[in-house]
Amino acid sequence: MIPFNRPHLTGKELPNIQDAVATGKLSGNGKYTQLCHRYFQERYGFRHCLLTHSCTGALEMAALLLDIREGDEVIMPAFTFVSTSNAFVLRGARIVFADSRPDHPNMDESSLEHLITDRTRAIVVVHYGGAAVDMRAVMALAEKHGLLVVEDAAQAIDAWFKPEGARAAPLGGIGHLAAFSFHETKNIIAGEGGMLVVNDERFVARSEIIWEKGTNRSAFFRGQIDKYGWVDVGSSFLPSEVTAAFLYAQLMELEGIQARRIAIWQAYDERLSALQHRGWFTTPTLPAAATNNAHVYYLLCRDLETRTRLIQGLKEAGIMAVFHYQGLHRSPFYADRHDGRLLPHCDAYSDRLVRLPLFADLSLQEVERICATIEQLMG
Amino acid sequence: MIPFNRPHLTGKELPNIQDAVATGKLSGNGKYTQLCHRYFQERYGFRHCLLTHSCTGALEMAALLLDIREGDEVIMPAFTFVSTSNAFVLRGARIVFADSRPDHPNMDESSLEHLITDRTRAIVVVHYGGAAVDMRAVMALAEKHGLLVVEDAAQAIDAWFKPEGARAAPLGGIGHLAAFSFHETKNIIAGEGGMLVVNDERFVARSEIIWEKGTNRSAFFRGQIDKYGWVDVGSSFLPSEVTAAFLYAQLMELEGIQARRIAIWQAYDERLSALQHRGWFTTPTLPAAATNNAHVYYLLCRDLETRTRLIQGLKEAGIMAVFHYQGLHRSPFYADRHDGRLLPHCDAYSDRLVRLPLFADLSLQEVERICATIEQLMG
Repeated sequence: MIPFNRPHLTGKELPNIQDAVATGKLSGNGKYTQLCHRYFQERYGFRHCLLTHSCTGALEMAALLLDIREGDEVIMPAFTFVSTSNAFVLRGARIVFADSRPDHPNMDESSLEHLITDRTRAIVVVHYGGAAVDMRAVMALAEKHGLLVVEDAAQAIDAWFKPEGARAAPLGGIGHLAAFSFHETKNIIAGEGGMLVVNDERFVARSEIIWEKGTNRSAFFRGQIDKYGWVDVGSSFLPSEVTAAFLYAQLMELEGIQARRIAIWQAYDERLSALQHRGWFTTPTLPAAATNNAHVYYLLCRDLETRTRLIQGLKEAGIMAVFHYQGLHRSPFYADRHDGRLLPHCDAYSDRLVRLPLFADLSLQEVERICATIEQLMG
Repeated sequence: MIPFNRPHLTGKELPNIQDAVATGKLSGNGKYTQLCHRYFQERYGFRHCLLTHSCTGALEMAALLLDIREGDEVIMPAFTFVSTSNAFVLRGARIVFADSRPDHPNMDESSLEHLITDRTRAIVVVHYGGAAVDMRAVMALAEKHGLLVVEDAAQAIDAWFKPEGARAAPLGGIGHLAAFSFHETKNIIAGEGGMLVVNDERFVARSEIIWEKGTNRSAFFRGQIDKYGWVDVGSSFLPSEVTAAFLYAQLMELEGIQARRIAIWQAYDERLSALQHRGWFTTPTLPAAATNNAHVYYLLCRDLETRTRLIQGLKEAGIMAVFHYQGLHRSPFYADRHDGRLLPHCDAYSDRLVRLPLFADLSLQEVERICATIEQLMG
């Protein structure tokens, strides 16, 4: 049996947790939380980082920081996870879904300007599979219309936006705010976990307050005020030190984990690209300015029937391959609220995309077995 | 140095986490989450339990389940933690703060009926220090006015409401919904952690959806539906299996932990009650139908100056004693929104209550040292 995902462990998670336990500080914002914050700030130059209990939590912090209100409109792709939209729906936003690009599941940057109205407040970009949305186009559009940009970088750790003739920028470091995930299916994991990145200075002070349940406790512990209290809305977004200690063990091995995943990704791509001419599927292409962080390896099948046959055939061979998002514009919850626009590219990815097993402990022999099975099934 | 709190470990936390890691399932709702749910359901007869990343999260789930909307009124004590109110403020509620009882920090049950208007939707009770609010009075009032009741049972694990002539009921098992905390300062800990209890059948199905980011994923995994999707609002309220594995280790030792805390509580009470006649402070009294879960041991000082002197004197002796909530009706965030009623009993607890160190690993020798220091200071 080859599962779709198996959490990779570096071996330092338990010693770190043991150390956290020994310090006697297990609730949030202790030593390991600080170490994780510093790691991200130093490696990627993020302005301000706050670990959260989930990427969902980080997106909710973003919606609170943007002060989203009833009736505000937020533009985001329909081909995304429910949390991208829920976080803004919880604040009363109306979601305006954008279609995907014809050549990639990312949202079509050229379609966005038509969706902007005088109620639009923000654009949420999702870097599908860690592949960069054209952030130059999105940031220019946002500036032109006075909008704020949130990067849903759930899958985008250690990925860059590298436009020709400009400096590479890490995903999550470009929008006004960004959210990362450390869910067990991600490259770097903490079981459940996430992080808010604040790149715009205007949001730094309030982000700490919202993180700490609407109190100015962070400023209190830095000695900036002599008593703390309820000063704003907020929630308990902090993960425990147990979670942070686990995450820090993973971060210490980030480069090795990434190298391993990229090798697997390339092995898939080399072997399966050679089968494209048969016409059953195509292998992924990266947007022009995107790097590959090997978060996902997917095939785009000719049609839904082909995908169903492929998933079923792999399953019978003990290999778990899975489809991905069902377009949110057609979900039971939002179909009636959606403005009715057709989003054909999104629908195509919903129907035709299949993800193959990809985790750091997957061997190249297993990759070969998977590819050979696909070759046989799609003969 | 005697800290105010030191997280107690049973020694089984790391082996449990190791086991969770070995199963290869680290995100939420795995084996240990299920074990914790079953433990609570069997020991306390709770109808339905859902672990959450925090008690704050459980309170937010309650606010979503109650479908609190802009302008709805929610009655709760002013002497409570910010999360009790934030969870409802995030949904647009106006908070109507009740005063405390003259003889106990719990809210004054007899003051509630006057606060009910035709916009009132819910009463949130807080069992301060694990001491039961008169749930018979509150539930009768709620029934009379068609209101829903949420128990903020953050501090109330293993505590009962035992009205004369009626069966004892566990706190958290009486209101329509209840929220528990496993923050490191609580009797039973998980670093950060919480739990929603659903006692009213009407809320069970939707609670699972809200817990799982507004999707019907739980029903999908039970095989009740063949595809899951976005069907409602929701968030990622699940803790990881690492957190649940930690918590389960604590639950397995709950009786030992409780016995230890109760012995410490009683040692304090015996020694310090004998000093009451000096007039500097009084020792706690329990409401008539409350049991003592030894969550907190506090003194009620004669006045703010006495408390300041006591805390300062203890600190100089290397003993960390701390005050507790500042009334939320006077907080920077809510003072202008509060209706102006004076809440003198709440203010008294804000000014005069001091909590002494209480954790399972505190020795009786240390308790004696603390009491002797108090005796000296308050001579």
